Amino acid sequence: MMISSGSGCKDRIQYLKWTLTIFAPNKALFKLQEQNIVRNRKVTMPMTQQRATARAHPNIAFVKYWGNRNHALRLPSSPSLSMNLAGLHAETTVTWADELDEDIFTLNDQRMTGESLSRVSRHLDALRARLGIAKFAAVESHNNFPTGAGIASSAAAFAALTLAGTAAAGVSLDERELSAIARLGSGSAARSIPSGFVQWHAADQHEQSYAESIAPPDHWALVDVIAVVSQSHKAVGSTEGHRSAETSDLQGARVAGAAERLAICRQAILERDFTSLAEVVEHDSNLMHAVMMTSRPPLFYWQPASLLIMEKVRQWRAEGLRVCYTLDAGANVHCICVKDDADAVTQALGRLSEVQEVRTAGVGGGAVIIEHSLPT
Amino acid sequence: MMISSGSGCKDRIQYLKWTLTIFAPNKALFKLQEQNIVRNRKVTMPMTQQRATARAHPNIAFVKYWGNRNHALRLPSSPSLSMNLAGLHAETTVTWADELDEDIFTLNDQRMTGESLSRVSRHLDALRARLGIAKFAAVESHNNFPTGAGIASSAAAFAALTLAGTAAAGVSLDERELSAIARLGSGSAARSIPSGFVQWHAADQHEQSYAESIAPPDHWALVDVIAVVSQSHKAVGSTEGHRSAETSDLQGARVAGAAERLAICRQAILERDFTSLAEVVEHDSNLMHAVMMTSRPPLFYWQPASLLIMEKVRQWRAEGLRVCYTLDAGANVHCICVKDDADAVTQALGRLSEVQEVRTAGVGGGAVIIEHSLPT
Repeated sequence: MMISSGSGCKDRIQYLKWTLTIFAPNKALFKLQEQNIVRNRKVTMPMTQQRATARAHPNIAFVKYWGNRNHALRLPSSPSLSMNLAGLHAETTVTWADELDEDIFTLNDQRMTGESLSRVSRHLDALRARLGIAKFAAVESHNNFPTGAGIASSAAAFAALTLAGTAAAGVSLDERELSAIARLGSGSAARSIPSGFVQWHAADQHEQSYAESIAPPDHWALVDVIAVVSQSHKAVGSTEGHRSAETSDLQGARVAGAAERLAICRQAILERDFTSLAEVVEHDSNLMHAVMMTSRPPLFYWQPASLLIMEKVRQWRAEGLRVCYTLDAGANVHCICVKDDADAVTQALGRLSEVQEVRTAGVGGGAVIIEHSLPT
Repeated sequence: MMISSGSGCKDRIQYLKWTLTIFAPNKALFKLQEQNIVRNRKVTMPMTQQRATARAHPNIAFVKYWGNRNHALRLPSSPSLSMNLAGLHAETTVTWADELDEDIFTLNDQRMTGESLSRVSRHLDALRARLGIAKFAAVESHNNFPTGAGIASSAAAFAALTLAGTAAAGVSLDERELSAIARLGSGSAARSIPSGFVQWHAADQHEQSYAESIAPPDHWALVDVIAVVSQSHKAVGSTEGHRSAETSDLQGARVAGAAERLAICRQAILERDFTSLAEVVEHDSNLMHAVMMTSRPPLFYWQPASLLIMEKVRQWRAEGLRVCYTLDAGANVHCICVKDDADAVTQALGRLSEVQEVRTAGVGGGAVIIEHSLPT
């Protein structure tokens, strides 16, 4: 990877400094890495090739993450709660290799460059710093769901990358630390490390802001029926969006109430109380979009079709279906329902001309290692 | 009018007590009026028939009114700013008559009963208390725009009623007091008394919460091009909506910033700065709808078509048209533009299949007396 000039290089060094503040014990090694990146010279430490493959699911938040108290470390403004999405996953193989003189990233067999590669490389920097590695890596990732199908892929991607990168280095970190490290790559990736229903803690310290499971996948048979209304790429990506949250006069009030909403949502899940769940999930989604559309400049992620589906979902629930909606930073509508009502919801969505496609996912497990090559 | 039992009667007495606290000087007369209403007996004070007709325009708010600090007196949570809509009006004739033993209200030649009549009667109570009248009134009102065409009719209606009722009693009140009294009938009616561009002050006292003109109609040739997307009646009326504002966690922050937004909007109008106007008008509208949709239960006044038009308006502005949107408690979109761009906006809206009808209105004057019969 050529990082030789301008702001890209400055950003990279800034990020290294941030990770350095977290992983201070590896300062010396980190310094080496920093020099290596700046000068683009091959590191000659004698290490052999190591490889591992991990799999992680995307997740859908019931209580949302929007806005950071620290953008560089992706320390969120408020706690959040999600469910992992079974059947959908990213599978990522990391190979730390002496012979590489830059990081390589392929996504669905396509060699990636530019910002996609840079973001992966920055996360590898964090792993190098934490694990004491002074090698570049080859990262191969596959998603079994299309990009732009209404499912944020970065959570699954960075959770799998974190676990694979760690395992490939022959290091076993506990779930808590894996979650915190995954967070550095993409905030919501913290929630794709633990299994089932997951709570992510907000905190001022890297180590304190991790996610943990509050209930396993089989605790409650919920289904996310995703109404895809737009395949187009978001005009404003999440990372930039998180920065915009603080420009809304309403973000403070949203954040102030988050812990209470999370407690209500958590209780609703633990008690399998769909009525309470539906109310808090829709309310929290509305709050996030209220912040988005009152940011400066305003962000309207939802589209006319999204609004129509939201209205239909409220109507279907009034008619007896156990379904509620939630929207991420995109136009597609996640219809969370109990499994018994998932077919009815899927069919009802299919009858709407505005819906391009419907996908369903049950409650998924945590990130797992699926292949681990011993050092050669 | 029979007010003989139950909560209707209690409400009426409660309202009388409220108006009594405002218009204390007329206590004795008010007492008489109260007895009269409760016992439904004819008052026998010797007064002759008096009649006047007034005309008032509806208005569209650039900085919104949503939520009250005092619901009974409609003292708003925050100040607001609007423009009167020329060409659209309510024309109301009030006749105070000895021979009536109840208030009568006809709207567009239809005899009204129930809540419509009660609301007019409550406002007549306020006028009776203030003016020292112990008679019932016949109220005939005509709107030259259809109800449910995206234009709130209550502002024009209560402004015209206040002015006509006062003039019919042979009393001349100053604009400031007329505005405050009109406010008792419908909050935004306070803004339909003064002319042109109007600011309504928020305050804790009845006398202090009135509207006044900040610029006459000919100050700036703006046009409200109204995209009608729904003729259906609002699911939740404004009076109830104002009560719901305080159930949103976001209302506090919205209110806290209102004075600043008003100052920016006022300045933009005084300097005829459309760029600044557009930004604050859309932002303020988004803030109000953010509060609405995060109230409990949530209120979604906009519809898919509204969202589409909002998006189009932002796009047209980016392309050079001087137009911005604002939405009241309804689905129709008010496209505020400079007169030179009004035709282009009207045509562009006309090309959207989602738009049922387009109406335009320039900047209107204040409420005026158009006929005044001398006492017979």
